[in-house]
Amino acid sequence: MVKTEHIQVKTRGNCHVVNITDDVSAAVAGSGLKTGVATLFHVGSTAGITTTEYEPGLADHDLKAAFERIAPETDHYEHENTWQDDNGHSHVRASLLGPSLNVPFTDGRLVLGTWQQIILIDFDTRPRSRTVVCQIMGE
Amino acid sequence: MVKTEHIQVKTRGNCHVVNITDDVSAAVAGSGLKTGVATLFHVGSTAGITTTEYEPGLADHDLKAAFERIAPETDHYEHENTWQDDNGHSHVRASLLGPSLNVPFTDGRLVLGTWQQIILIDFDTRPRSRTVVCQIMGE
Amino acid sequence: MVKTEHIQVKTRGNCHVVNITDDVSAAVAGSGLKTGVATLFHVGSTAGITTTEYEPGLADHDLKAAFERIAPETDHYEHENTWQDDNGHSHVRASLLGPSLNVPFTDGRLVLGTWQQIILIDFDTRPRSRTVVCQIMGE
Repeated sequence: MVKTEHIQVKTRGNCHVVNITDDVSAAVAGSGLKTGVATLFHVGSTAGITTTEYEPGLADHDLKAAFERIAPETDHYEHENTWQDDNGHSHVRASLLGPSLNVPFTDGRLVLGTWQQIILIDFDTRPRSRTVVCQIMGE
Repeated sequence: MVKTEHIQVKTRGNCHVVNITDDVSAAVAGSGLKTGVATLFHVGSTAGITTTEYEPGLADHDLKAAFERIAPETDHYEHENTWQDDNGHSHVRASLLGPSLNVPFTDGRLVLGTWQQIILIDFDTRPRSRTVVCQIMGE
Repeated sequence: MVKTEHIQVKTRGNCHVVNITDDVSAAVAGSGLKTGVATLFHVGSTAGITTTEYEPGLADHDLKAAFERIAPETDHYEHENTWQDDNGHSHVRASLLGPSLNVPFTDGRLVLGTWQQIILIDFDTRPRSRTVVCQIMGE
């Protein structure tokens, strides 16, 4: 059995971390499936998905600092010569984090830890409307 | 068909790399399924899962050095102000590596390379008991 | 329903980025399945899979620069003492990127963005022939 849900997320861009746990939980609960895996996939190449303890220190500062270390905003990016834009670092960060995450569920509930939330990080340089496909497979 | 197994892992923390390949292989063999995907998910926000060639050079030194470069232990983390703790770097590293991994299997065996093992890396600053959910789907 | 395909990729090594989107699309189309998830898994420990906007700036320069920052080629790697080889950085980069990616499909088509392609990045220090297992599950 497969159920497809689309989660819409409005972001501010610039490493905005959005907690989408409740949306995913609701999609799993609404699927009627009890045991399986929710595959999350961000459609686009300048945002990614992972988990974290969603609290302001990590969400608003610490994660951003690490991505700034890996792919600094002011570095030279050949991508920006291709399109004359400013988001080379956004693409690099998104490729490193990855667009997909898989979360198992049992008894209709995601197997997350108490301090573990599902997040989308938007690396683009402006506010965006994002789509996360939530493919729920199981029985 | 879906089968759920829980793999328990004791770690020393501090970038301890634990080879969990045998546990995952046993879970797949015990499932009775022949072809499908094993979805591994670490429950918690300070450890992650990936693959590597499991040998002492990479496991005890090289991987740790890279994570120290990405999120240095002695850097400033706002997360530590939230809880007055010391594991901001652990959270950042875990979010970057990610908590989930998917490994296909055919004929009841994981499709790993000869020099490719499944590992959990525990980034926390103390020994921990970890749970990895292994959701096995297939036929 | 599960279908297994093997995608063969020839690379130049040294952060060669290969666009495998058409191979994955063909595997999904050929499976006869309409809705589900394609689980991609690179067999081996010195390459990884993710998505990006596949254009020369990112593919030939920007991604490589970020991996050089995370795990510099000329750094000291204990792995190289284990085998007297030269690809410690290749292993570290591959573990960080990860060997697996999951892409949902609906109506027989991958749910990728317009500017989002599936890529294999080969971090090894020489040309390689790579195998990506494409496990397609759904209905």
